[in-house]
Amino acid sequence: MILTVTLNTALDITYRVRSLRAHTTHRVSEVVERPGGKGVNVARVLAALGHEVTVTGYAGGATGEVVRERLSAVPGVTDALVSVAGATRRTIAVADVLSGDTTQLNEPGPQIAPAEWGAFLDRYEELVAGASAVALCGSLPPGVPVGAYGNLIRTARSAHVPVLLDTSGEPLRRGVAARPDIIKPNSDELAELTGSHEPLRATQDARRRGAHAVVASLGADGLLAVTPEGRWRATPPARVHGNPTGAGDSAVAGLLAGLVEHLPWPDRLTRAVALSAATVRTTAAGEFDRSAYEELLDRVSVSGESSAA
Amino acid sequence: MILTVTLNTALDITYRVRSLRAHTTHRVSEVVERPGGKGVNVARVLAALGHEVTVTGYAGGATGEVVRERLSAVPGVTDALVSVAGATRRTIAVADVLSGDTTQLNEPGPQIAPAEWGAFLDRYEELVAGASAVALCGSLPPGVPVGAYGNLIRTARSAHVPVLLDTSGEPLRRGVAARPDIIKPNSDELAELTGSHEPLRATQDARRRGAHAVVASLGADGLLAVTPEGRWRATPPARVHGNPTGAGDSAVAGLLAGLVEHLPWPDRLTRAVALSAATVRTTAAGEFDRSAYEELLDRVSVSGESSAA
Repeated sequence: MILTVTLNTALDITYRVRSLRAHTTHRVSEVVERPGGKGVNVARVLAALGHEVTVTGYAGGATGEVVRERLSAVPGVTDALVSVAGATRRTIAVADVLSGDTTQLNEPGPQIAPAEWGAFLDRYEELVAGASAVALCGSLPPGVPVGAYGNLIRTARSAHVPVLLDTSGEPLRRGVAARPDIIKPNSDELAELTGSHEPLRATQDARRRGAHAVVASLGADGLLAVTPEGRWRATPPARVHGNPTGAGDSAVAGLLAGLVEHLPWPDRLTRAVALSAATVRTTAAGEFDRSAYEELLDRVSVSGESSAA
Repeated sequence: MILTVTLNTALDITYRVRSLRAHTTHRVSEVVERPGGKGVNVARVLAALGHEVTVTGYAGGATGEVVRERLSAVPGVTDALVSVAGATRRTIAVADVLSGDTTQLNEPGPQIAPAEWGAFLDRYEELVAGASAVALCGSLPPGVPVGAYGNLIRTARSAHVPVLLDTSGEPLRRGVAARPDIIKPNSDELAELTGSHEPLRATQDARRRGAHAVVASLGADGLLAVTPEGRWRATPPARVHGNPTGAGDSAVAGLLAGLVEHLPWPDRLTRAVALSAATVRTTAAGEFDRSAYEELLDRVSVSGESSAA
């Protein structure tokens, strides 16, 4: 089983409006609700690829109940979320029918009490013992210590379970110092971590800070991976047009699937890039266009070299 | 007991953001949730004035549960909402901290099945029998017949219970034809109903269409009432600055409170204007500034004449 951790789960709501104009009133023509948060999106993609996935993190309130209800409808996903008193946050994506542009409103998430953080640590330790890999994903809700991911990484490493970290800012900085197996920052997150806007240099710097492997997602330019086994660049055949939301989460799912299937790095990166591009073709995070994915698997180009070569 | 009907109840959510800009991403700094929909706001104001109020209409889904939970915390309000399969709609008010301006996003409401409409009619008939007055408020959710208010008005009139209608568009047009005791349109609703933008003329026309009394709310200019007992104009002492959301609902509460207390029209209008202005001083519909209300009661000016004079 692959374990994904989403401490700040979300009820992702998409509204369709004709055209959003600030300081006016809008009738919403369509409402779609999905379980969200980065680790939940990763889990949905992994489950669609045929992997058994367990989702943990927090859920609470009426919004948390909707998240759990929707999650229970996804085959292959096991709900191991920890109940909390506060309500799971909403994220609202307001999509303009006319322009296709999206306006995003993200709630901060519930306040987590110290006892709730303790309850999560206990649940996590149990779950890690049965996991083939762990992904730690996204922002921290208020009340969770900023060094939380360092703690979770050390637990996974003690249990000899490989751990991937996908977050940003101070939680990323603190997490990297705990030596995760893989981090998957995008260009902005990598620049914020290292101070360098030059991807290869920044990626190497992130490894010096503690990450064993760094897979930087460079948007339409694909992935740059610097690992103990070698360094590679994987790029999609052409610029993919669509909605980039969730592309990074699908890349994480591809990396994890390749990891637990013991694929060599170039194959893992091919999957990650193909899944990422196939997600851009859909409207929602956590979903991908399967025929686009299968077609793209043959068309992703990987260049680079193994350290052993 | 006063009965308020809100077929399209809402979970009113207010977000504070620094400044909303279309097609960008925003962190919400504060989230406030309140039970909403016009009749729910009217009920909260009536309860604060010391009246026993029963709220009916529909509630469903996780959002409906939150509405009921919040409503149960309001002293003096009895929940007689009918459960439905669909989820109660959300309304989102995005308030800019910098400018004070608000952007509104309103969901359409749940689809109501024919059996659910039948269940509501049964509940309504029972409740009307024990009511001293009925207020029919707001929009209709999808699936409720557009002539619904006509039906509800006839039921109330058969039971000799006075009925106030506060809606817009085609539901207002159809409702007026069923001869409600009072309608409370704003300038736009009145112009849409009658085709006239001249308030006195439009108000008289609305009476000819079937309304026994018409109380037009003219924003900062107060209320214009044309009734079988006479015609009056009631105006606040000065332009009130603040948030006009809910001012109309508070005016309805003032009219109903005066009606069941058998006050003469000038006193009812004074209350309605004072409550309306005291609501503009607060941030939320269904709430008012009590000291402003009490102070305003002495300062509203009413001019006009009784038909009998």
